[in-house]
Amino acid sequence: MNILDHFTFENVGYRIEDLETPVPLVDIGIVEHNLRKWQARSDKLGIANRPHIKTHKLAALAKAQIELGARGITVQKLGEAEVMADAGITDMLLTFNVVGAHKLERLAALAKRVNISVVADSREVVEGLSKAGQMAGRDIPVLVECDTGAGRNGVQSPEAAVDLAKFIHASKGLKYGGLMTYPGTRADADKFLAKALELSEQAGLKTEVVSSGGSPDMWKDEGLAHVTEYRVGTYIYFDRSLAERGVCTYDECAVSVLATVVSRPNDQRALIDAGSKALTSDLLGLKGYGVVRELGFAKVYNVNEEHGYLDIADCNDKPKVGDLVRVTPNHVCPVINLFDKVVVVRGKEVLGAVKVDARGMVQ
Amino acid sequence: MNILDHFTFENVGYRIEDLETPVPLVDIGIVEHNLRKWQARSDKLGIANRPHIKTHKLAALAKAQIELGARGITVQKLGEAEVMADAGITDMLLTFNVVGAHKLERLAALAKRVNISVVADSREVVEGLSKAGQMAGRDIPVLVECDTGAGRNGVQSPEAAVDLAKFIHASKGLKYGGLMTYPGTRADADKFLAKALELSEQAGLKTEVVSSGGSPDMWKDEGLAHVTEYRVGTYIYFDRSLAERGVCTYDECAVSVLATVVSRPNDQRALIDAGSKALTSDLLGLKGYGVVRELGFAKVYNVNEEHGYLDIADCNDKPKVGDLVRVTPNHVCPVINLFDKVVVVRGKEVLGAVKVDARGMVQ
Repeated sequence: MNILDHFTFENVGYRIEDLETPVPLVDIGIVEHNLRKWQARSDKLGIANRPHIKTHKLAALAKAQIELGARGITVQKLGEAEVMADAGITDMLLTFNVVGAHKLERLAALAKRVNISVVADSREVVEGLSKAGQMAGRDIPVLVECDTGAGRNGVQSPEAAVDLAKFIHASKGLKYGGLMTYPGTRADADKFLAKALELSEQAGLKTEVVSSGGSPDMWKDEGLAHVTEYRVGTYIYFDRSLAERGVCTYDECAVSVLATVVSRPNDQRALIDAGSKALTSDLLGLKGYGVVRELGFAKVYNVNEEHGYLDIADCNDKPKVGDLVRVTPNHVCPVINLFDKVVVVRGKEVLGAVKVDARGMVQ
Repeated sequence: MNILDHFTFENVGYRIEDLETPVPLVDIGIVEHNLRKWQARSDKLGIANRPHIKTHKLAALAKAQIELGARGITVQKLGEAEVMADAGITDMLLTFNVVGAHKLERLAALAKRVNISVVADSREVVEGLSKAGQMAGRDIPVLVECDTGAGRNGVQSPEAAVDLAKFIHASKGLKYGGLMTYPGTRADADKFLAKALELSEQAGLKTEVVSSGGSPDMWKDEGLAHVTEYRVGTYIYFDRSLAERGVCTYDECAVSVLATVVSRPNDQRALIDAGSKALTSDLLGLKGYGVVRELGFAKVYNVNEEHGYLDIADCNDKPKVGDLVRVTPNHVCPVINLFDKVVVVRGKEVLGAVKVDARGMVQ
């Protein structure tokens, strides 16, 4: 397959130097490398790959992920699910509790046209989902979200997981779809899931899917014994936080934010036109808001909304006003969510701009 | 005037309980109070009010600001300027260096149809602006941006300011428009500006505008002797950071993010459907990412992209799954920039949704 077949590009010129800034550049060659590398590992492990589209929010890349072997996609919000369904994706897991009358109606409408599974971690959530399933006229698979140590959503014990599984199984318009977790540590998750599986088997429930996820631990082998599918999002683009953790190399970071140097008040700092409205304020434990690799990993040491402060004290060849720089952001997912369009490149070649289909779909 | 005359609302129902979440609610009564209070102060001081629209990004509110007495608006990016020009705003100051061939063409096109002033802090920037002015066929006013202590953009000394003013004055297609700063402290800014004014007068240059700004110091009287106009953005909505600094009361915070409780794993935490893609990761020195006033100022103590972690340990009446909460965000400007639409309310009455006209206009 040619990954580019899924794209329809808007022509924005052929040279990076001609692009308006700030704008994220997505290197499609690196994207394809990242997708193939992870798919090969998933295949080797015999674990279904269900990538999270929250990172790229592009229908074209969701299709590429599936064509390369992904079982389906993961979405975090109904709005993302609707955009992906509109684009022709038919297999998705929504890993966020659907709560509220309007949202349940939207879920029902989605369930009529695509294979969507959802999650729940309380009877209140399941009762709502049951209404949606009945509206849809088909049994929606519901996975029990387990808090295996991350301290976010999820039932708090294997016993509670099986209780909720039984409740789902007994609810009209639903079927028990399995277990889902976003682990704290793999070891804790494994222990929780093993017990929940044992108890659910004793209860006569068949657990078809055990869904785990997380990019930071994606290459670790331990703790996957019970896992049947894995959700990973950032792996498609990677970012500074994952490079610094050793999950990828900087060469595997597919996205940089192209920015222009607009001010050079002194020899210590340059101001660029990418601030928190382009790079976000996400730190993820790092110092600074991104790095410019071609300037010896010069740090964006501060951001205001539209200003990025670049530390050029140690740069031998200091950038001038008008120069372009490429910032590798700390956390790529929320960066993409700030832009209506990204520009797809292959090395130095500009292929064109594409709309970020699911940008801002938080509802 | 009726502030609502500027709005065309999309009907989203009449009750807050019927809204989809997460979504920012803008209380128009509080907005009007905030606008009038600041305009009255500007009038009393005899300083022109030039509000920054980066906070609200709504054409309707920009028009309301002008109708209530603002001299014109401030924009931070060309994209914002274009949106506001399209909406009929004719007087604007762009407080960001315009650099790059495409952007200079866009500036020239704008200068043909509205009164736009710009800033510069280097000869390189002025040389570009000169081309734009010549393309536009009119002299674009350029203010010299002065770094009076904030350590961001700006010339580094009063002497450098006057050198650049002379350079602007001598450049085709431009005229010297005055001095502009975003102060570190008012005292430092006053000292810098006084000296720059003295030197520019000696050089025979008339400085018509001295533009300062900043919400945190907006109520302070000192250090305004030389200031002819003031740029303030957040004052229209205010937020937790300004309430905590004592710049406003919490009752003057016009925006809250309406969110739904989707999970209650235990008695210590509730998960809401507003994470960093709704509240941002901006901390501004605060603990947590926002507070829920009606729950005893319960803190959003952590955020993932779509999850907000609400600390309910000290709540007497703990929220249940499905309950709505209103989060007062730390920093309202980047929050608004995440949403395609905001919902305008008056107290408990829903007036309707409006498009955030200049959302995402970072270029």
